[in-house]
Amino acid sequence: MKLAIPQLNYKAGDIEGNSAKILDAIRRAEQENADLTLFPPLAVAGILPQDLLEREEFIHACRLAVERIALQCTRTAVLIGAPNLDASNGIMYNSVYFICNGEVVDGVHKNILSDYDVLNESRYFVAGEDNTPIRYKGKHIRILFDEYESEFIDPADSFVILFGSAPFSVDSRLSRHRLLSSLAQKYRKDLIYVNPVGGCTSVLFDGGSAVYNARGKAVMQCATFAEDFQTIEIGKPAMPAAPFIPDRMTLIHQALCFGIRDYFAKHGFTKAVLGLSGGIDSAVVAALAAEALGAENVMGLLMPSHYSTDHSVSDAEALAHNLGMPHTTIAIRDIYDQYLAALQPAFGDLPFSVAEENLQARIRGMLVMAMSNKFGYIALNTSNKSEAAVGYGTLYGDLCGSLSVIGDLYKTDVYALARHINREREIIPEHTITKAPSAELRPGQKDQDSLPEYAQLDAILKLYIEDNLSPEAIIAQEHPEPVVRKITGMVARNDYKRAQCPPNIKLSLKAFGSGRHYPF
Amino acid sequence: MKLAIPQLNYKAGDIEGNSAKILDAIRRAEQENADLTLFPPLAVAGILPQDLLEREEFIHACRLAVERIALQCTRTAVLIGAPNLDASNGIMYNSVYFICNGEVVDGVHKNILSDYDVLNESRYFVAGEDNTPIRYKGKHIRILFDEYESEFIDPADSFVILFGSAPFSVDSRLSRHRLLSSLAQKYRKDLIYVNPVGGCTSVLFDGGSAVYNARGKAVMQCATFAEDFQTIEIGKPAMPAAPFIPDRMTLIHQALCFGIRDYFAKHGFTKAVLGLSGGIDSAVVAALAAEALGAENVMGLLMPSHYSTDHSVSDAEALAHNLGMPHTTIAIRDIYDQYLAALQPAFGDLPFSVAEENLQARIRGMLVMAMSNKFGYIALNTSNKSEAAVGYGTLYGDLCGSLSVIGDLYKTDVYALARHINREREIIPEHTITKAPSAELRPGQKDQDSLPEYAQLDAILKLYIEDNLSPEAIIAQEHPEPVVRKITGMVARNDYKRAQCPPNIKLSLKAFGSGRHYPF
Repeated sequence: MKLAIPQLNYKAGDIEGNSAKILDAIRRAEQENADLTLFPPLAVAGILPQDLLEREEFIHACRLAVERIALQCTRTAVLIGAPNLDASNGIMYNSVYFICNGEVVDGVHKNILSDYDVLNESRYFVAGEDNTPIRYKGKHIRILFDEYESEFIDPADSFVILFGSAPFSVDSRLSRHRLLSSLAQKYRKDLIYVNPVGGCTSVLFDGGSAVYNARGKAVMQCATFAEDFQTIEIGKPAMPAAPFIPDRMTLIHQALCFGIRDYFAKHGFTKAVLGLSGGIDSAVVAALAAEALGAENVMGLLMPSHYSTDHSVSDAEALAHNLGMPHTTIAIRDIYDQYLAALQPAFGDLPFSVAEENLQARIRGMLVMAMSNKFGYIALNTSNKSEAAVGYGTLYGDLCGSLSVIGDLYKTDVYALARHINREREIIPEHTITKAPSAELRPGQKDQDSLPEYAQLDAILKLYIEDNLSPEAIIAQEHPEPVVRKITGMVARNDYKRAQCPPNIKLSLKAFGSGRHYPF
Repeated sequence: MKLAIPQLNYKAGDIEGNSAKILDAIRRAEQENADLTLFPPLAVAGILPQDLLEREEFIHACRLAVERIALQCTRTAVLIGAPNLDASNGIMYNSVYFICNGEVVDGVHKNILSDYDVLNESRYFVAGEDNTPIRYKGKHIRILFDEYESEFIDPADSFVILFGSAPFSVDSRLSRHRLLSSLAQKYRKDLIYVNPVGGCTSVLFDGGSAVYNARGKAVMQCATFAEDFQTIEIGKPAMPAAPFIPDRMTLIHQALCFGIRDYFAKHGFTKAVLGLSGGIDSAVVAALAAEALGAENVMGLLMPSHYSTDHSVSDAEALAHNLGMPHTTIAIRDIYDQYLAALQPAFGDLPFSVAEENLQARIRGMLVMAMSNKFGYIALNTSNKSEAAVGYGTLYGDLCGSLSVIGDLYKTDVYALARHINREREIIPEHTITKAPSAELRPGQKDQDSLPEYAQLDAILKLYIEDNLSPEAIIAQEHPEPVVRKITGMVARNDYKRAQCPPNIKLSLKAFGSGRHYPF
């Protein structure tokens, strides 16, 4: 049986656009004489349609689209996902329809709904209660909506189609090959893994659809973070394919560039703006944006203040030069002085405080936004996960922007990514990487005046945020108690701030944003 | 059987504080010889603990707290809710424990999990599979976690305890008396409705715990939006109590004042700051804040610009005078000119645009935040739901603040609330209510230059947002097609903006914020 696996980039809510892509793929599959063409759950709706699933007109339009697609399937059979509402009782399943000879003839429902991270399927769907294989051309085809459903695999199954349901995360991508290989081996079945590619602002799907034979060997793999179209004869011997298992930094680099590109493409934007401080965070974001959008489409703003060091300007200029990106300088000194004058009657003789620090960060944010509003540039946020965790950032200042590029990357990983970006030539100036990090909001300020060293900070944050360990359990791992108490307290106190931050491109299983909810 | 109903204000995550309140109530119940004292689900954890429920140390601490509470229950039996984790299999139920003679002897699990609006219980809990009544002193006591579980009521039940699980909304509060009364009548059971009171930033619970006899008559009712403690003899004839069914504007007024007070109390804040534009939104928020916090604790900032009308200042001053609140004026003109000068090399001769409009709104936002940072005032946001819906507001400008007070109130309701606030004397200046609304960001600007009249706008928005109607269905209700297409398009395009707005005090079943998720 010849399978076609079109790995497409669906857009949430864009039924028409998704249908057009699907029909193109069906035409190609028919040209290549595929018996069965595989599209994932919610393909028509687009990945992560969220509360669009509560709108009757949307569900109805999805159903209509499936019927229209069916009419075009003259030679290939198709599996394609769509929300499946029983109007008689209001029950809705997350289903994959089986289309054969131009008709929707059958369907399989998702039995184990996903309610974790950014997924909340129980909000929309009712779980199906059985899993019957599709019968087609003498085969029993088992359809699973994710690996939690593998218990449904039956010895009589001819082969297994496993749809990817989990958003991209670095760790799950790195372990996926082993997981899929061992599933195929355990059940001694050919395993066809079908994963979409594309983003919904902060949440990415990475593609990498693949086929494993019953001995657990990969025999086909689609591209990572790109659309693809592959066919394979199931049940015939095939040459093992070397599975693509990228190293961690390569994967992060690829994910972030793809996340930027996908966000801009889906919103119809082409140009970005960001502040360049001479520091590592903005340098890394600028380099990623230049790669994703073209350096000529990324505008850098240098915004020195009273407290800026000379190297903040020279390092930013060197970066812009290395990347070949446009940049301009707007000093914030006079605006800042004007604010102080306006506030003087209210502030009186009160000492310099966080108010004045935040003023500087907010003036910069406003200038970035002014350039965004005037020229249609999209503002990229440059803050990192370590800062977001402890609230080291200014709301409406450096925390502004439409998309946070490295907001799910700890500071130590930002350094590692900078080294990775520089692997062939110096793009990010060496001095940006080696100097002590500073917000430069008061004279001589350094991050480490108020935070522990980033290596220690990040180690504690990972245990607390990613592993959900208690402060006591972290202390038991030889981290000093006062530091652990301080840091975990800061994390707990700053949810109010993170609630107003731009969406982060999600890299981890515990990104700040819509997949992590704490009371505040 | 004598029941005690302590209606307490729990704080999410504050196990120690919640336990102390619970123990106080148990002591009082024992003094009053209550046989059974009723605390709601998750009482120990605090209402809406969210991802704290993913932390083992939190679940363990809740369990310990229940055991410690049990030791103090010498004379009254107790029903009390807590997360219930079976460590052997990782399955967690949302349970109410039955404590008798100082021991945890039994429990009932929630069978129908809530996954709608701000609730996502399937993220944490597994649904129980049966509902057995508690047997105590010869009675069969049926415990329901919400009204969807009423199918479990059995003719043999002595009486029914129904816990409130839904966050406050105006509509559900107004229809609740009828719902509870008809449930009691339908099943011919005494019905004890137990609802917590208090907030978790945007989400409120309104209390109003009540007892209905088997004929559906209310025989007891606790306070709305306040803690309370009531006892009642079940099974003995009781005088019907007039159920408290407030009118709509009274309820909205009460909810918003409570929401402000609860937010400030739970965060340990006492003082607020907001911009006073002379318009209706900031006037209503100032009046509510003055009532909630004391006028002396609410600082108003008047921030006129080039484009401000004279009445914007005189109306704001009249309001501050009527309320007796402190206020100060900081003109933004010089700061604005300084920005334009700094941006001139970049902007060149480009015409005045949204960039300059937003600059003014953002300077005001920055001044509010500067006062907040310098003096520890909490910034209140004053934007309304109609504006939020269509994106009529400036991120990092008028959309800044820690708490949005009227962000779930349509503009037409803001006017009605202003009239309600003025019901006894003029607090909000009459001219503020009658003049044409304007953002005053360019000469002669009026809201209705770019939006339809608010009566029409709000009617369309309610059909689209609250009722989930399609544009076609709205047009079929005699709204002009071009207006409907324009408005629904604006709603769909502005989720990116709402994602960075402060939390709204939730009044409706479809508030913007954590209970409404659209892809953007």
